[in-house]
Amino acid sequence: MDAYIAVDIGGTFLRVASYRTGKITQLTYERIHSDVEQPGIYNRLVKVIEQAWPKGHTVIAIGIAAPGPLDPFKGIILATPNIPEWHDFPLSEKLSSRFKVPIYLENDANLAAFAEWKFGAGRGHHNLLYLTISTGIGGGVIIDDRILHGHHGLAAELGHVTVLADGPVCSCGQKGHLEALAAGPAIVRYILEQLEAGKKSRLRGAENPDAQEVAAAAKRGDALAKSAFSRAGKYLGIAVAGFLHTFDPSIVIIGGGVSQSGTTLFESFEASLRAHVFNPRYLEEITITTGSLGDDAGLLGAFALAQMEGSDQ
Amino acid sequence: MDAYIAVDIGGTFLRVASYRTGKITQLTYERIHSDVEQPGIYNRLVKVIEQAWPKGHTVIAIGIAAPGPLDPFKGIILATPNIPEWHDFPLSEKLSSRFKVPIYLENDANLAAFAEWKFGAGRGHHNLLYLTISTGIGGGVIIDDRILHGHHGLAAELGHVTVLADGPVCSCGQKGHLEALAAGPAIVRYILEQLEAGKKSRLRGAENPDAQEVAAAAKRGDALAKSAFSRAGKYLGIAVAGFLHTFDPSIVIIGGGVSQSGTTLFESFEASLRAHVFNPRYLEEITITTGSLGDDAGLLGAFALAQMEGSDQ
Repeated sequence: MDAYIAVDIGGTFLRVASYRTGKITQLTYERIHSDVEQPGIYNRLVKVIEQAWPKGHTVIAIGIAAPGPLDPFKGIILATPNIPEWHDFPLSEKLSSRFKVPIYLENDANLAAFAEWKFGAGRGHHNLLYLTISTGIGGGVIIDDRILHGHHGLAAELGHVTVLADGPVCSCGQKGHLEALAAGPAIVRYILEQLEAGKKSRLRGAENPDAQEVAAAAKRGDALAKSAFSRAGKYLGIAVAGFLHTFDPSIVIIGGGVSQSGTTLFESFEASLRAHVFNPRYLEEITITTGSLGDDAGLLGAFALAQMEGSDQ
Repeated sequence: MDAYIAVDIGGTFLRVASYRTGKITQLTYERIHSDVEQPGIYNRLVKVIEQAWPKGHTVIAIGIAAPGPLDPFKGIILATPNIPEWHDFPLSEKLSSRFKVPIYLENDANLAAFAEWKFGAGRGHHNLLYLTISTGIGGGVIIDDRILHGHHGLAAELGHVTVLADGPVCSCGQKGHLEALAAGPAIVRYILEQLEAGKKSRLRGAENPDAQEVAAAAKRGDALAKSAFSRAGKYLGIAVAGFLHTFDPSIVIIGGGVSQSGTTLFESFEASLRAHVFNPRYLEEITITTGSLGDDAGLLGAFALAQMEGSDQ
């Protein structure tokens, strides 16, 4: 029987699953640590694909979700902050000569958006905006049922849009980007600044809190932790209002770890979004929700991509 | 012979032209003052369409460029800041029962983008970003050769995207939008603030300078006037860098009166854009230019729309 392989290249794990045509139940599933600091990540990737190869099936195509920037048309990883070995790395070409099947590479946030559109919270919508918020902020946009790619295939890096000109420095080096105001590290940075300035908080003892610890403190009622999520939600709402004015989607889906950190962020985000939309019609019939596919969004998007492109061959 | 009528509804003029299939030379052209403060704008519009009606031709369809927000799917003007008479106004339905031809209504900035893509500076490009800068800032985006509409048809209001959270108040009431930082009134407001603060300038005598006077002073070397355009160009560059990260177009076209105000703004914009793009690949093979159709962009876009939609009938 025909099958498709989906790969999700993450900073922590390399994950591989296989699927039958039209079924989202996994035939096989394997994952290994990415160990991005250790050389040989390509060989580890080949090995885990071999382990997940579905016996007794004909693999039609492999879809791959990887962090950008990448070239989806040529299948080249341009640069990933997490994987120093891969610079202008022709991943699709190498894997296709190794496994003798077509390889389709796409930005992981675009594929998570595509998966939510095809299988998840976005089913039935034609214009979808997806944001994933964790250590960074990624974006994916579906317009008239198609992934927004752009000329070089570099759309839609929605974490790298300026919300506060001359604001805090972003992971990319620019200032005042959404990611520098609302991703996990931005929330932690705000906490540390406020502690430095003498604000009281149960987080004072923590050597170097991460966003999960801040979320836990917020759930226990810690005022500073709550204010950190409120602030992130405010900027997220301002940015998403701008994305509504830009794309006018019928659904906004928030995925990623920070979105699952409890209600403080999401409530503050939703209030800020509604306050910053400049015409109420943008909000008519709109759905604002978290993703329904969780960590599997990237894999399912890679499967959907492989199935869509593979069936065109 | 077959002909199409194009209408451009502006705050100053109602303009109507007619065209033969596939030819951008005008068969007829008429314009009258909009007189938006006077009642009866719909009757004036009907009259000028009658005047421009091409004798001896069969009109296949009428395309209309109008300021947003509007509903292009239903042909309804939702609200225009300039025309208080038109609120939820079913313009297409009224004109189609009057003239017995199909009417196609679209946002004027979207149609200017479409015209530049089809006839102007954007020919041959598949992913185009268009901004028009005058008293406001409008946006139009072409993705894979199609106008970006969004769910309600309210895309792409690129002037109403926040660049400086909690910044100056925009015409729409929100804060820190691109329009509030880089449109004509924002440039004038900055001048007035700086004069108030004691800055020297030849503009000190001017009672209430407009953007054109500021541009003239900048051309004569006035430092304050030049700094006002540099500042607008800086914020425009920051915003367009965000639009590149968002849409990844192969061409950026700047139209509208302020874009024609000399080199200070455009130079400062281009330098700011290049400084604020977070990955150099976005700038590879990209074209950054002013529009080539000038004031006719809206009319030509309305013609192109009528021809495209009308030929589907």
